[in-house]
Amino acid sequence: EEVSKLLALKAQQGSDKDEKSSGKFVLKTAKGTRDFNPRQMVIRQQAFDKIIACFKRHGAETLDTPVFELKEVLTGKYGEDSKLIYDLADQGGEILSLRYDLTVPFARFLAMNKVGSIKRYQLGKVYRRDNPAMTKGRFREFFQCDFDIAGPTDPMIPDVECVRVVTEILDSLDLSEHIVKINHRKILDGLFEACGVPDTQFRAICSSVDKLDKSPWEEVRKEMTDEKGLAPEKADQIGQYVLRSGQDDLVEQLLADPKLSLSKSAIEGLEALKLFFRYAELYGVKKRVKFDMSLARGLDYYTGIIYEAVLTSILYIFLYIKRQSYFISIFLLDQNPEEGVGSIAGGGRYDNLVALFDPKAKAVPCVGVSIGIERILAILENREANLKLRTVETQVYVAAAQKNLLEERMKICAELWDKEIKTEMSYKANPKLLGQLQTCEEQGIPWAIIIGQSELEKGVVKLRHVPSRQEEEIERSKLTDVLKHKLNASIV
Amino acid sequence: EEVSKLLALKAQQGSDKDEKSSGKFVLKTAKGTRDFNPRQMVIRQQAFDKIIACFKRHGAETLDTPVFELKEVLTGKYGEDSKLIYDLADQGGEILSLRYDLTVPFARFLAMNKVGSIKRYQLGKVYRRDNPAMTKGRFREFFQCDFDIAGPTDPMIPDVECVRVVTEILDSLDLSEHIVKINHRKILDGLFEACGVPDTQFRAICSSVDKLDKSPWEEVRKEMTDEKGLAPEKADQIGQYVLRSGQDDLVEQLLADPKLSLSKSAIEGLEALKLFFRYAELYGVKKRVKFDMSLARGLDYYTGIIYEAVLTSILYIFLYIKRQSYFISIFLLDQNPEEGVGSIAGGGRYDNLVALFDPKAKAVPCVGVSIGIERILAILENREANLKLRTVETQVYVAAAQKNLLEERMKICAELWDKEIKTEMSYKANPKLLGQLQTCEEQGIPWAIIIGQSELEKGVVKLRHVPSRQEEEIERSKLTDVLKHKLNASIV
Repeated sequence: EEVSKLLALKAQQGSDKDEKSSGKFVLKTAKGTRDFNPRQMVIRQQAFDKIIACFKRHGAETLDTPVFELKEVLTGKYGEDSKLIYDLADQGGEILSLRYDLTVPFARFLAMNKVGSIKRYQLGKVYRRDNPAMTKGRFREFFQCDFDIAGPTDPMIPDVECVRVVTEILDSLDLSEHIVKINHRKILDGLFEACGVPDTQFRAICSSVDKLDKSPWEEVRKEMTDEKGLAPEKADQIGQYVLRSGQDDLVEQLLADPKLSLSKSAIEGLEALKLFFRYAELYGVKKRVKFDMSLARGLDYYTGIIYEAVLTSILYIFLYIKRQSYFISIFLLDQNPEEGVGSIAGGGRYDNLVALFDPKAKAVPCVGVSIGIERILAILENREANLKLRTVETQVYVAAAQKNLLEERMKICAELWDKEIKTEMSYKANPKLLGQLQTCEEQGIPWAIIIGQSELEKGVVKLRHVPSRQEEEIERSKLTDVLKHKLNASIV
Repeated sequence: EEVSKLLALKAQQGSDKDEKSSGKFVLKTAKGTRDFNPRQMVIRQQAFDKIIACFKRHGAETLDTPVFELKEVLTGKYGEDSKLIYDLADQGGEILSLRYDLTVPFARFLAMNKVGSIKRYQLGKVYRRDNPAMTKGRFREFFQCDFDIAGPTDPMIPDVECVRVVTEILDSLDLSEHIVKINHRKILDGLFEACGVPDTQFRAICSSVDKLDKSPWEEVRKEMTDEKGLAPEKADQIGQYVLRSGQDDLVEQLLADPKLSLSKSAIEGLEALKLFFRYAELYGVKKRVKFDMSLARGLDYYTGIIYEAVLTSILYIFLYIKRQSYFISIFLLDQNPEEGVGSIAGGGRYDNLVALFDPKAKAVPCVGVSIGIERILAILENREANLKLRTVETQVYVAAAQKNLLEERMKICAELWDKEIKTEMSYKANPKLLGQLQTCEEQGIPWAIIIGQSELEKGVVKLRHVPSRQEEEIERSKLTDVLKHKLNASIV
């Protein structure tokens, strides 16, 4: 028996070897991951800058956690999605997994450092062994931009601020229209209770409801009854509610609903949303909010309000048909257009997560939102596809008009670097002048210094304004001062 | 024999299981990793900003690659250190590993995208299953800040620019004195050749030489002879060279050396360093460079010049004795003070790495340098330990002087956010004025708006300048304009 175990162990290791030796070497990134080229980095950084500016505008500080955690930290936090967690190989030592989101590590951080109150943002990559659909902006390695408010507060004040943060960001990215769907876990729990779902099945049925954004009710109902063993009449009762959506009017209707109003949990959730809509009005985001009873969110740890932001404009569809046909599929296949063009942010309240990590189970109430940038970047990259975009910031190019001026060019570069002027030159010892000037024009470098033997003997250099091709002679000794002055004047 | 192999396999796996079952759940980050709290993030971001500014000053664009790669991409690139690569668990699908540095993924990117020429920088986390010594700034997850110049150039021009970049960065971080040790792989190869080391052992003996920064010659010699089977007299011959260091004077001596000058490889390397010193003079970094024949660098892929920057000032030792005793150990135990306080950057030329990935084995010559920030951050965090550092950038705090003003506060916040003013308020419905003003002072928020019922009825609010405690009345309708004006005037 001992030997059979060992053989099994070996077989397990053997399988890697087979795969390794059978496949030829393929030059690619891992499935579901991508490189960012310099142009994509410029677009990404511009988006990050706007996102971070908004987070700072709301008083958040930032922190960073490792890319992997002890596997135990992640275990039992993600419900059915736990199967998507990437584990590290057991190479001796600790058992580790790649982070699945930024929320659980944040909760671990709060418990570990006994932080009872913080407003923090974090941008970082997270990892999910999902079936990637990269043309739809769904990756295995992707960025999340998180904003969370932790600590005791009066009800709903931070919850509505999270929605405000999302709408500010989506507006600042100029992504056309969006809505934020909201729901409340207590309403869902109350609904399940009122429809006679046993307590132990709440999370499982909740997972089924969560699929309504991708599947029709009939399929979801089938999953509830066939896979999860819910009585068909109970499923039908649920069906009468979860397809409804509205605003505070729907809240009022449900508060008066004879069945729901019997559930204490439902009443609490509905009262909370009532307050939410009042504050949303004050924060100027009410028109962006839709109370959608089918919104459930897959993750286990939510305890109160839950959000999901979707882009709603179908303008993109027509805009991108012209250019790249696959872009149509992003938006048409992914979701019914009037239902929005795919989730772009999500979040909610999770009041019990920190307590799971605290040795004394001390709770720190938290609410937060996570913005996914992959779909946003797909839109931005496509929108700016024909735009000229500088990927370097070089201000001055030091060129030679003749041979044997390498050392002189090097001296000038060193001088300009000393003055913190962004400067480049050719890496050839004797480059041709035309090629050097072409580099300036192609790269959008605004100024070129052109040196020649006779000019150097006279103690001057030529300064060329690349866009206008105007040239002037400058005293060599005053070169950096003149450049500093010109660069300050024209903020290039 | 088969069984003994299997038993060894099991023993290896068993040890982890023991660790798993014996230990209770411990609230910690994975071994060798760390969180960055908001204060540490501010310091880190300031350092990154300076590093990126320098990279941009030298005309670099940036890119990003995934945190993991196909394992094959990393295989065979790191010599003896390959055992430190983190593998992902085989969960079906591809066999993946965490990146060990940014250089190999960069080379993979160049081959995959057929990029023949680029100057790029990249900041990212890399992973090594090393024995962490976190008090010494040695982690399993750590940042590298890389600058690389790829593409054909005339000799040594980009190579010396990399040193210039390192010295600019270390100067801008105000890290006191540093030197950049250099050597050349061709000199080492020529030396091994001249001392009669067989070709096949060059890399192994090179790895031994690389340990001279941590071990005395006797130990390194023992490793060469006992472990690697080198004849003692050959080891002794090597020993006569590798302990020498100097500048271009040493280059000249070695060019005249009867034994070395028989090696074509050594001559080529020495001529290259001669040129290097000439250019280093022009770039104003010659005084920072030390030609150190014991510098070997562990990695397999270097083909030309190699660098390593070390901090040399022993000021830190005295400075930090006062404050935190462990800081002494960082610098005293890590390295002999006159030898520098530990490596802080490294790099070199790797002309054949890209060809390994290219289907047609097309070579792209590259040279680059990698700056490690963990030790730098340890120094900066300690230096600024007593400094007051803002971790939020909030400009205005909206406070209430009485109860029942929550909705009014929310309206004002929304207005200020609309105008992109960084604004916060208390999350309590009825906070005490004193507490609100304390928050402003503690957080260094420069302006507070104080609203009261009677003022609101008069159509005014109070604006308090927190540092001076001066207050003035502002018309409610002109509030955002007045604030915008004050904030622009005093760039907070």
